[in-house]
Amino acid sequence: MAAKLNQFILFQSLICVLSILCVESLRKGFPHRKSHQLRESGYAYKTAYFEQKVDHFGFANDDTYKQRYLVADQFWDKNGGPIFFYTGNEGDITWFCNNTGFMWELAPKLKALLIFAEHRYYGASLPYGADAAKDPNKLQYLTSEQALADFAILIQELKANEPGAQNSRVIAFGGSYGGMLAAWLRIKYPNVVDGSLAASAPIWSFIGQIPCEAQLQVVTNSFKRESSTCVKNIRKSWGVINTLGATDLGRARLSTTFDLCALLNTSADAGALKSWLLEVMFNLAMVDYPYPASFLEPLPGWPIKAVCGPLSNEVVDDVALIEALSKAVKVYYNYTGQAKCLDVNQNAVGSLGDELWGYQACTEMVMPSCSNGVTDMFEPTTYNFSQVSDECFKQFKIRPRKSWVITERKSWGKNIKTASNIIFSNGLLDPWSSGGVLKSISPSLTAIIIPNGAHHVDLRTSNPKDTPDITKARQTEEYIIKGWVKGDNS
Amino acid sequence: MAAKLNQFILFQSLICVLSILCVESLRKGFPHRKSHQLRESGYAYKTAYFEQKVDHFGFANDDTYKQRYLVADQFWDKNGGPIFFYTGNEGDITWFCNNTGFMWELAPKLKALLIFAEHRYYGASLPYGADAAKDPNKLQYLTSEQALADFAILIQELKANEPGAQNSRVIAFGGSYGGMLAAWLRIKYPNVVDGSLAASAPIWSFIGQIPCEAQLQVVTNSFKRESSTCVKNIRKSWGVINTLGATDLGRARLSTTFDLCALLNTSADAGALKSWLLEVMFNLAMVDYPYPASFLEPLPGWPIKAVCGPLSNEVVDDVALIEALSKAVKVYYNYTGQAKCLDVNQNAVGSLGDELWGYQACTEMVMPSCSNGVTDMFEPTTYNFSQVSDECFKQFKIRPRKSWVITERKSWGKNIKTASNIIFSNGLLDPWSSGGVLKSISPSLTAIIIPNGAHHVDLRTSNPKDTPDITKARQTEEYIIKGWVKGDNS
Repeated sequence: MAAKLNQFILFQSLICVLSILCVESLRKGFPHRKSHQLRESGYAYKTAYFEQKVDHFGFANDDTYKQRYLVADQFWDKNGGPIFFYTGNEGDITWFCNNTGFMWELAPKLKALLIFAEHRYYGASLPYGADAAKDPNKLQYLTSEQALADFAILIQELKANEPGAQNSRVIAFGGSYGGMLAAWLRIKYPNVVDGSLAASAPIWSFIGQIPCEAQLQVVTNSFKRESSTCVKNIRKSWGVINTLGATDLGRARLSTTFDLCALLNTSADAGALKSWLLEVMFNLAMVDYPYPASFLEPLPGWPIKAVCGPLSNEVVDDVALIEALSKAVKVYYNYTGQAKCLDVNQNAVGSLGDELWGYQACTEMVMPSCSNGVTDMFEPTTYNFSQVSDECFKQFKIRPRKSWVITERKSWGKNIKTASNIIFSNGLLDPWSSGGVLKSISPSLTAIIIPNGAHHVDLRTSNPKDTPDITKARQTEEYIIKGWVKGDNS
Repeated sequence: MAAKLNQFILFQSLICVLSILCVESLRKGFPHRKSHQLRESGYAYKTAYFEQKVDHFGFANDDTYKQRYLVADQFWDKNGGPIFFYTGNEGDITWFCNNTGFMWELAPKLKALLIFAEHRYYGASLPYGADAAKDPNKLQYLTSEQALADFAILIQELKANEPGAQNSRVIAFGGSYGGMLAAWLRIKYPNVVDGSLAASAPIWSFIGQIPCEAQLQVVTNSFKRESSTCVKNIRKSWGVINTLGATDLGRARLSTTFDLCALLNTSADAGALKSWLLEVMFNLAMVDYPYPASFLEPLPGWPIKAVCGPLSNEVVDDVALIEALSKAVKVYYNYTGQAKCLDVNQNAVGSLGDELWGYQACTEMVMPSCSNGVTDMFEPTTYNFSQVSDECFKQFKIRPRKSWVITERKSWGKNIKTASNIIFSNGLLDPWSSGGVLKSISPSLTAIIIPNGAHHVDLRTSNPKDTPDITKARQTEEYIIKGWVKGDNS
């Protein structure tokens, strides 16, 4: 299988970090992660580096690291044209640069300079090199606040030193965690950026902000809109896997039906299969785009519809149900027909970036997930903060801090009416929309809802198969951003 | 001399940290600082402690410390009455509690709970104990951002756990550096505090924000309004001290005229006398209150008027000029007649708190000061960042970071139109008003000017000798704060 790095996968890992279902996988080191392969694109940019302090908030450590950023100035009006600044997520910035077509389409229209700034500790922007993850002291500067400070300083330096940029308006763009960063950058440094497009940024997903069932409920709804029978079948299948998973014979049946690379030996192995399936369904809801696309896996347009195909008739027989489910998920992991078998532990070899996001999820990014089996199609699971905390300590020798998350994120989260000039866009198919801003807060804090949209579909290159609401979202965003560039700041 | 701890002295030390005049004193360890003596007051409060993380911004260090805070609930309406929260400055919080009479006068009127929170590393709130200053690694958590996080978390915890406080409005109060903290608390945590009174908070004094001559120009103007001849005499006196300081005979003359405890032995000693005099004049402008008060020293009402008395006639003769100047400054250091002699190095025994503010001035609080001898009455001096940086490194093994100060403070400084609900009050006699917000920025960012006011006079207990503009300032503040408490939030 051709694994692709993508922000969805990375971001999605949260659900594993924080769900009881996945405690086992957390212990193994985020096994669902994949290695990075960058998609080629035709976008032309230059690569540059800027020396940043490793610790912006203390003065004892004077170490520096080189932050990578990508520059495309071919569209730029050097007499004060705006700067579009992508606030890099948890991954290699070249991937985000190549997968944020909306910025590339908008730049020529507004004569903008494009900057894609890499997030510290990812890609080629590595304080303390590739081994940082092994040492909690070297890893401690991996925080969103430090990353925001990097971005703010880089923007100030660019404006000070790039001829023509002194008075340029700066618009931040970001999706997913990058969308949170874009929003927070405007909230924390309102004089460094003039406005932000925060696409699919679940800034209200933090502990205490929404019920932990919310994400999987959206996943369920995204399946339900294709087929309520599909949902019924999936809900039923967990019990069947449990029953089969309890015996050698049953596990053999599961192993052959799903074409597993390795036989399920224990009921825990059957649990891993369930975790994998949950993850697949979560991912599908994130990437349910109207046209074929390659993210976690190469997928057809409207992949949930395709996946639900074999599950759209009620299946009573247990074995028949498992066979239908197997057919369904093969749409996901074997759309190209290249996969010989399915390794539910295939991602156990995590890359550095994967482990690092795990660290963030164990520190600041505490976004609980659980299920109740009623409003969602999954087995009921609870969210247990202490257990998560213990797992985090085992892996990273650190613990998440509930009160800090609440204090810092609440301020940048639930009640942000004092902020301005932020667009929050959310596709309603996307599980992360459950923690997004779905209602405009003020005339300058605009929510854009995309009913047929998956995870920050609006940041993607426009496509003839885009639904009208996707197209409309991009038009509205363009209109608002044009206003910011002209100086209609509130 | 009865030395009193006060925020003015503490804050004023900046001028020494950053002025060339005072490089020598910096090297000696902030010799102008005095030991702490707390004034008794009749205010009744309880003392409490709250366990805070030492590092809010990283997760590797899980150490905690006990933050002290003072609570007065005798006026409080426990059914949702507001919380008045003093954001502690660089010193023992009991001093600020006892010297912020305005809060005590306002609390019964608005049925408020009073909280005075101590700033980390000062008073009894000591991460790593009294020896922290010796170790840059232990001192690295002494930053305004960490202190703000302490305040925000403490407020959240109080609201969560104090019956009746859940829905209380929170108003932050602070003066001087504490005023900056009050303003920044509202800017950074707008959902934790509903409004802030930032009294004499020079949030625009940071490097690159105002000309470095600005402070001493205000000092000069505060003297000029009493007597322009006084200013002329003072300006002339530096040359006379230089001439006398160059010879043994001249130094002996200076030593006897100023009743120095120790003979001036070198021309560098004469330089120390000049530094001391500049400091006295700076302090006088800060504490030029209409009524007798005891801060740095016990002083009469309108002390500058008293000091300028002996200097109000033009003095041509050098020796006569020095004698007049000596008489003038004795108003300052010997108003009570108790001092036997003047020790220009008397403050060389700095307390822990003094050294710690020096650290802050060497890291984040980079506020340059200089003089030109034209718009001010001092010898021309330049501000040399590299020299300051070298001195800081010598003393603390750290260096200030120009670009960080600009990025972080600019965002929280010069252009804060996106913020709301902050009162910036400034007395125009106060040198720190030069870096204050003197003009309202929006309907909810209100500047209050007190032409006859010194350093945050409005936070002091009302006094029959208060000038009408001082009284008016407090009335306006009360009116605005009442609005915030009622919920007229913008």
